[in-house]
Amino acid sequence: MRAEHREELKLRRRNIALTVSYDGTNYNGFQWQSPPRVAVQNILEERLEKIFGDKIELAAAGRTDAGVHAFGQVVNFFTDGRIDVEKIPIAASCVLPSDIVVREAREVDKNFSALHSAKSKIYFYRILRGAASNPFVNRFAWHIFRPLDVEIMREALEILIGTHDYSSFKAASNVQRNPVRTIYAAEIFNENIFGGECLTIKIHANGFLYHMARNIVALVVEVGRGRINLDDFQKIFDARDRSLVPATAPAQGLCLQEVFY
Amino acid sequence: MRAEHREELKLRRRNIALTVSYDGTNYNGFQWQSPPRVAVQNILEERLEKIFGDKIELAAAGRTDAGVHAFGQVVNFFTDGRIDVEKIPIAASCVLPSDIVVREAREVDKNFSALHSAKSKIYFYRILRGAASNPFVNRFAWHIFRPLDVEIMREALEILIGTHDYSSFKAASNVQRNPVRTIYAAEIFNENIFGGECLTIKIHANGFLYHMARNIVALVVEVGRGRINLDDFQKIFDARDRSLVPATAPAQGLCLQEVFY
Repeated sequence: MRAEHREELKLRRRNIALTVSYDGTNYNGFQWQSPPRVAVQNILEERLEKIFGDKIELAAAGRTDAGVHAFGQVVNFFTDGRIDVEKIPIAASCVLPSDIVVREAREVDKNFSALHSAKSKIYFYRILRGAASNPFVNRFAWHIFRPLDVEIMREALEILIGTHDYSSFKAASNVQRNPVRTIYAAEIFNENIFGGECLTIKIHANGFLYHMARNIVALVVEVGRGRINLDDFQKIFDARDRSLVPATAPAQGLCLQEVFY
Repeated sequence: MRAEHREELKLRRRNIALTVSYDGTNYNGFQWQSPPRVAVQNILEERLEKIFGDKIELAAAGRTDAGVHAFGQVVNFFTDGRIDVEKIPIAASCVLPSDIVVREAREVDKNFSALHSAKSKIYFYRILRGAASNPFVNRFAWHIFRPLDVEIMREALEILIGTHDYSSFKAASNVQRNPVRTIYAAEIFNENIFGGECLTIKIHANGFLYHMARNIVALVVEVGRGRINLDDFQKIFDARDRSLVPATAPAQGLCLQEVFY
């Protein structure tokens, strides 16, 4: 095969982007894992290969951790498969387990990368309140039965908005070079989900350090419980020292809600 | 032991009522089953015995079918166990699996029976709409991707309100003597749950024939899809003939929402 023919074949391949929702409870995170560990990517690639008939290698907007969920994860891949793009969600529903759903599919420009083209992301973190748990919500929320002061949590979140060094909220093991990110919005609101009173924290940023969303939630909850005040919160944020923030909030409350391009 | 002493012991036992929520996905319905089948009642009785230290025999407001859920199932039982009633929900959460939750506990009059004292019940039936499923909702809803005319479904539901012979909606195998019940309210409304667009049918009645709620939903969906019109609906209702109603709607959409005493 001549080089230009190979190049032409490559150019003929379509670049397909999918918006994917998943319940992360039963997976070792999004990113591909060596068996017997199973990540969402393992399942998606294996099942999409049945639809497209060629080897699928996904790029994803966010590498969600084990137990973290996604409503609007975005992935893309190149394929020679000829299925109509609008038939992909239905075809995918026939081969995927019920905890992984392809919500939308579209053909995108050859230069589009779900990972590198992402401009910003929204994560939701859900807290289930009240004495009793809720069997319809507890896979998707952190149950806190102690009282929380929502107004002071809102003030703490407002402190985080802007372009800052978020080193205090990075993972203990994190060695990412640049700890500066921009948080566009950090909100907290009540939702009644399946009869469960939830408190949802929404963070929209141009990027997130590893564990950043869950570490922010952990510290904001300390404020809400009255264990630290807003001055302490500001000092811990300014100190850029991960060791001052309490244990990372549980994975099951976190959801990659939306990715913007 | 003298007869009057036994009677006195019995009178000293407390009558405890619990409000229980469960995700019915993994159970063979509420009512006790011979192992290896597992019903919600098997788990509840076995685990409550650990808390109360005596044999627990539950009476329940509704015998929900396999796969049906409950937000507000009510049960009661007599016990010599001395645990404070307000500590029961927390104690129960320590011994129950995460898909069964005791939301409330209270001591009730000796004459109270969760089954026989019930005056009326509300069932919710959730339909998930749109082309794509939703991994946070699909355990608790019937996914219908074809369009539904909500206004005509509302009109069909209104036909059912009142005191009527609901034989058309009984289970095919049903031999209940009296098929007359009173439906106080039959409503349909939109809910956004975890990003999923749901259509919820709420039925409040003084009682339900076996499979009645799911058979009503099945026929109302036929109206919503335009496969039968309101005249046909009325005729099928009036005919008191189960064989005219399509297959029972799937169990996973149904939830025993609330019981009134």
